[in-house]
Amino acid sequence: MARINENFLKLQAGYLFPEIARRVQKFQRANPKAKIIKLGIGDVTEPLPPAVTCAMHKAVDEMAGRQTFRGYGPEQGYDFLIDAIIENDFRPRGVELERSEIFISDGAKCDTGNFQEIFGADNVIAVTDPVYPVYVDTNIMAGRSGRADANGQYAGIVYMPCTAENNFVPDLPTRPVDIIYLCFPNNPTGAVATKEQLAGWVNFARENKATILFDAAYEAFITDPLVAHSIYEVEGAKEVSVEFRSFSKTAGFTGVRCAFTIVPRQLRAYTDNAGPVEVNPIWNRRHATKFNGASYISQVAAAATYTPGGKKQVRRIIDIYMSNAVLIRRSLKKLGYEVYGGVNAPYIWLKTPDGLSSWDFFDRLLEKANLVGTPGCGFGPAGEGYFRLSAFNHPKNVKQAMQRFAGV
Amino acid sequence: MARINENFLKLQAGYLFPEIARRVQKFQRANPKAKIIKLGIGDVTEPLPPAVTCAMHKAVDEMAGRQTFRGYGPEQGYDFLIDAIIENDFRPRGVELERSEIFISDGAKCDTGNFQEIFGADNVIAVTDPVYPVYVDTNIMAGRSGRADANGQYAGIVYMPCTAENNFVPDLPTRPVDIIYLCFPNNPTGAVATKEQLAGWVNFARENKATILFDAAYEAFITDPLVAHSIYEVEGAKEVSVEFRSFSKTAGFTGVRCAFTIVPRQLRAYTDNAGPVEVNPIWNRRHATKFNGASYISQVAAAATYTPGGKKQVRRIIDIYMSNAVLIRRSLKKLGYEVYGGVNAPYIWLKTPDGLSSWDFFDRLLEKANLVGTPGCGFGPAGEGYFRLSAFNHPKNVKQAMQRFAGV
Repeated sequence: MARINENFLKLQAGYLFPEIARRVQKFQRANPKAKIIKLGIGDVTEPLPPAVTCAMHKAVDEMAGRQTFRGYGPEQGYDFLIDAIIENDFRPRGVELERSEIFISDGAKCDTGNFQEIFGADNVIAVTDPVYPVYVDTNIMAGRSGRADANGQYAGIVYMPCTAENNFVPDLPTRPVDIIYLCFPNNPTGAVATKEQLAGWVNFARENKATILFDAAYEAFITDPLVAHSIYEVEGAKEVSVEFRSFSKTAGFTGVRCAFTIVPRQLRAYTDNAGPVEVNPIWNRRHATKFNGASYISQVAAAATYTPGGKKQVRRIIDIYMSNAVLIRRSLKKLGYEVYGGVNAPYIWLKTPDGLSSWDFFDRLLEKANLVGTPGCGFGPAGEGYFRLSAFNHPKNVKQAMQRFAGV
Repeated sequence: MARINENFLKLQAGYLFPEIARRVQKFQRANPKAKIIKLGIGDVTEPLPPAVTCAMHKAVDEMAGRQTFRGYGPEQGYDFLIDAIIENDFRPRGVELERSEIFISDGAKCDTGNFQEIFGADNVIAVTDPVYPVYVDTNIMAGRSGRADANGQYAGIVYMPCTAENNFVPDLPTRPVDIIYLCFPNNPTGAVATKEQLAGWVNFARENKATILFDAAYEAFITDPLVAHSIYEVEGAKEVSVEFRSFSKTAGFTGVRCAFTIVPRQLRAYTDNAGPVEVNPIWNRRHATKFNGASYISQVAAAATYTPGGKKQVRRIIDIYMSNAVLIRRSLKKLGYEVYGGVNAPYIWLKTPDGLSSWDFFDRLLEKANLVGTPGCGFGPAGEGYFRLSAFNHPKNVKQAMQRFAGV
């Protein structure tokens, strides 16, 4: 008898985005003339830059010729892309990486979701609250929790609240934990950690032989020169950290699919009797067994973002989103909102006014201004009373949205 | 302390292909003038057909324009591709599928490797011997076995021998098993199962409430009109079977990455106390949580294989490989070899002559004819004394290889 993995039955229904869609649809039906602007989406809106599409056309032509056709590539990705990453994303920041430490994939969602597989089932997982749900759900599937409580939090998972009081950077846990998920610049709060704060985490991990899974998918949005782009800018981080990166939000690759994960050779995890094990070859085995390489065309596209033209064009796209973020911040501050994020990240995290709950503010915004955002409580209980706006939109939509905000 | 998943430490080193590479390199160094022909590879050699590259160019252009740009698509894949699959691959064979039963992915290796995740850790897994190693290794990683024995077989896994005696279609297990991996047309033996044999498996699965994971990645190579292309051509199969398909070997997508998996709505697995659970929504949750959709360009490319021009061009590519297979079969038979496969599959499975072991025949072939194939024992102990040749090559190489075989 084939028995289901009953951990899947512990998962709560994906509630947030279906509920948003339901309320928007209901409103639109009652108000068919209302022109709704959506500022809730985490997807990009700008098209691929010309350097990228030009490289993709060339790659397609290669695939059409017998001499230049490419079949299976290395599961870990092509050296031409790995070398470009090392040279452009890490060396200039003083971080030296070997080719074998970089694993090209088809997305950071896959990587952040899959990485937990190489750890034992009884590790204690620590996540921030609010949090990107993939970190939690994939650990629930793997059996690292009990049931969820009324707040939607699972027994056995350690939740680290992020609020205005700690500037949305969690305090170090007071009990030992084994695997720690951190995401800076943060989705959903838009917060960043200082280098000193990251060093505190690295020290904690070294002392506890814990592993940090560091999600840096929004790294390209950092504008403050003092903020670290990679956790490896912190001394000793290679011994305790994995880092996830993506081309999705920078060069608009959400539909193209290319990302990468860094697993340093120095990183160790442990057997039950505390024997150290190199993590890199274990992840390599997992990656090569369950994945057959990212699309050649997507890898060529990703490499094109590192050409001189590609870099300028990507920068221009990010500038569009970041001027949206500036406009949103400035407009909301002027209106008296308490606003966070949006400086080194494409997300603006605001305190709801008048003590409204996240969903009550959602409804008010939809009814009074025909604007859609994301209720903060959807990312965890500490997000209650907060609200996420995204800078991924056309500037004219953002401008109009901010004019409407004045009437809320 | 971060503890590693110690099941990974049970995995044996990937030995087969590195060992082939080592022997070939050694020979080439000693014989620098020898022109080696490789018939061991499972990768395609023909370029992408024009209908496909033409569609890919259009898709890239769409991605370059603000109005036509596509970001995140549905995790399950675009309807334009799902509908083409239903209309072309299944309806003509009398199999009706709903859109929600098809999950587009970036590869059948990922799908066959990942699917086991949604089953509990204590299911008994049955695989053929010889076998595609991904089925086994991913279950070892998930903890469904003990250690490996001297033959490389893991305790707790049920191995079903496939030999000339059973025509390389395994006998039904004499003990109950929970999850059964079947692959027809088979890699590595090139065997196919008759519809009656598949019906026997479906009945066994229904009687035992087992699940069949049916790998049909080589379905397009079937030439015999009486051989089933899909397990769903067998009555009742939807209640007990998942089917994996791929564009890799048909349209040459090994570097493009697109595949799909069928999870029928009728399929049930069970809780520990035998309560039936719908498998489709569980897989949907897994797929949507850990995967963000296949590349839009790859999905457009896959859809192009179903256009009238695409179909003809794909057929032409398959015909090239299958005439290679015919030539290999005919040549080897003429030379007195005992030959299997190569009729409905791109693999030829031969009995080594003179009672040679697989590796001894490998060495003889390399030294006497400068030909490289794959030792059958690399796929499992029942493959000892067998040898795999692949039809994926340019016809002129295959012709030359067969002339050289005469001197072995």
